Amino acid sequence: MQIPQPYLLFLGDVTDPLAAKTARGILSWRPELCVGQYRLNSDTVSVGLTDLSLQEAKQQGAKTLIIGTANAGGFLPQTWLETLKHALELGYNIASGLHQRLADIPSLNQTAKENHCQLFDVRHYDQPLEVGNGKKRQGKRLLTVGTDCSVGKMYTSLAIEREMKAQGLRAQFRATGQTGILIAGRGISVDAVIADFIAGAAEAISPAFTDHDWDVIEGQGSLLNPAYAGVSLGLLHGSQPDAMVLCHEVGRQHIRHFPHMSLPSIQETIDVNLNAARLTNKNARFIGICLNSSSLNQDDALALCKKMEQQYQMPVTDPVRFGVATIVNNLLSI
Amino acid sequence: MQIPQPYLLFLGDVTDPLAAKTARGILSWRPELCVGQYRLNSDTVSVGLTDLSLQEAKQQGAKTLIIGTANAGGFLPQTWLETLKHALELGYNIASGLHQRLADIPSLNQTAKENHCQLFDVRHYDQPLEVGNGKKRQGKRLLTVGTDCSVGKMYTSLAIEREMKAQGLRAQFRATGQTGILIAGRGISVDAVIADFIAGAAEAISPAFTDHDWDVIEGQGSLLNPAYAGVSLGLLHGSQPDAMVLCHEVGRQHIRHFPHMSLPSIQETIDVNLNAARLTNKNARFIGICLNSSSLNQDDALALCKKMEQQYQMPVTDPVRFGVATIVNNLLSI
Repeated sequence: MQIPQPYLLFLGDVTDPLAAKTARGILSWRPELCVGQYRLNSDTVSVGLTDLSLQEAKQQGAKTLIIGTANAGGFLPQTWLETLKHALELGYNIASGLHQRLADIPSLNQTAKENHCQLFDVRHYDQPLEVGNGKKRQGKRLLTVGTDCSVGKMYTSLAIEREMKAQGLRAQFRATGQTGILIAGRGISVDAVIADFIAGAAEAISPAFTDHDWDVIEGQGSLLNPAYAGVSLGLLHGSQPDAMVLCHEVGRQHIRHFPHMSLPSIQETIDVNLNAARLTNKNARFIGICLNSSSLNQDDALALCKKMEQQYQMPVTDPVRFGVATIVNNLLSI
Repeated sequence: MQIPQPYLLFLGDVTDPLAAKTARGILSWRPELCVGQYRLNSDTVSVGLTDLSLQEAKQQGAKTLIIGTANAGGFLPQTWLETLKHALELGYNIASGLHQRLADIPSLNQTAKENHCQLFDVRHYDQPLEVGNGKKRQGKRLLTVGTDCSVGKMYTSLAIEREMKAQGLRAQFRATGQTGILIAGRGISVDAVIADFIAGAAEAISPAFTDHDWDVIEGQGSLLNPAYAGVSLGLLHGSQPDAMVLCHEVGRQHIRHFPHMSLPSIQETIDVNLNAARLTNKNARFIGICLNSSSLNQDDALALCKKMEQQYQMPVTDPVRFGVATIVNNLLSI
């Protein structure tokens, strides 16, 4: 699966800036893929791209319309249907990270077929997979892991890919969640595969390679999250990471959505990931820690990083504030 | 989901005794549910029940026809289709553990609808689930875990249920795989749910209860199997076991199907399961070890159990040869 590029980012008629998170993520990390934005009216949030009509963007080469918004239920607003059908008639593919599948909407499915266009429901995965086998594959892999969900694993992975490239390494980001897949143009939502195939999906996301230096694999969930640990373990085993980076949100008190469960410590998270990783890669190691320190001011954040670097004997940074150069340097120095 | 009982066991025209494993399992553990067997011809393997026609078994109260055979591809032989349609016309439900879904065969699906009968594809699970939450639930739970797949976890779970009942405890077997589900008449194939919901499925399989003493939950896979560990971890977290029993096959050299991966030690398996179990139950503990000692003679097997009891300081038995009374005794003594 490869989503044809470049993209036109569709923002519909959403007015909540947070709802445009997906579009903003794509633009931040892959500006070269974004021909423009398409808004249904002038009240719609903007991500700062040129407003283009479907026809204008098509003339500029756009191949896929990306539904760059999220909403509470994950459903496609009925009022967008005519626009999407029109896009298909113009020859666009459509990619969506919504829960509701575009392919399950009969009129869209029909129009896509008639116009030989593809619908990409990146939150779902229906292709055949094999179960994992744990066999050593060629190529070096870095995996981000976390003390919990939503602590910056995707951001950190993309920042590391960018920094590796800046330092002359040939790096490829490997996506495992819907926003990551829209950014990369391919990948598998590992939490959406049949449970038997989690590790196999991770092996498929980052197959053997010799044409570049590092695969940077987007982590999911946490080994110590009572809802999602199975996904995280399968992803860890299938990724066979040579290097891991721990992600953590400063000040988070309990596991997300679970006030009855306190957050695991950083050391505990490191230990449990190292132990599990060694099943498929004896040489797995941590090379750095990335903090989301937005609850602190800049000085306190920097002081915390310095203190933690002493404590854990590896680079500690906030990737948004201070970048990830120290972590990539560390990787190169070992 | 509850498969209506009692059952007529359908053996088709299979001649390989191993292919009747499912039927034999149901008969061993739930003889009271089996009205008889139905064979297409006299060369078909027998599980020793009375041969009945569909009509005869119906008159004796059979409510569900169980496809009690397995074959290499997991597909339904075309030649059985007329028989199954006839069963539906007589008012039977049909339950199958095959990979191929009965519900995906249009003529069967149609006939089932016309006759208001149900098709149970127990290897699949399409019902809505919630994600796990790790909240403590009422009731005591025992989970079997293993050094690998196919080391006797289902057998051990059923033997423990039976022994608990013999000792006056109110126990309920909770099924997590297709044969177990056909035996119990309900359950969820945890390896067939969407990965996000593994722990949630385990929570649904054994919800809070106060009307009996123990749920005995059938384990799956192994935390140290590179293909299936994610399933095992989600099942462990969702089960929140108070007690665990380790299952192991004596003499197995490497992880099943993976000659490149040596089998983990018993101590390593105990440690990794205890560590993971404590996320959702601080008091989780091992209460015994069950060996498949079929590679040894009886005397050597007994000697090995004695030696291992010293080593691990808990009851060690082969449930087939020596039963599981020592393990249930240990549970009661703590």
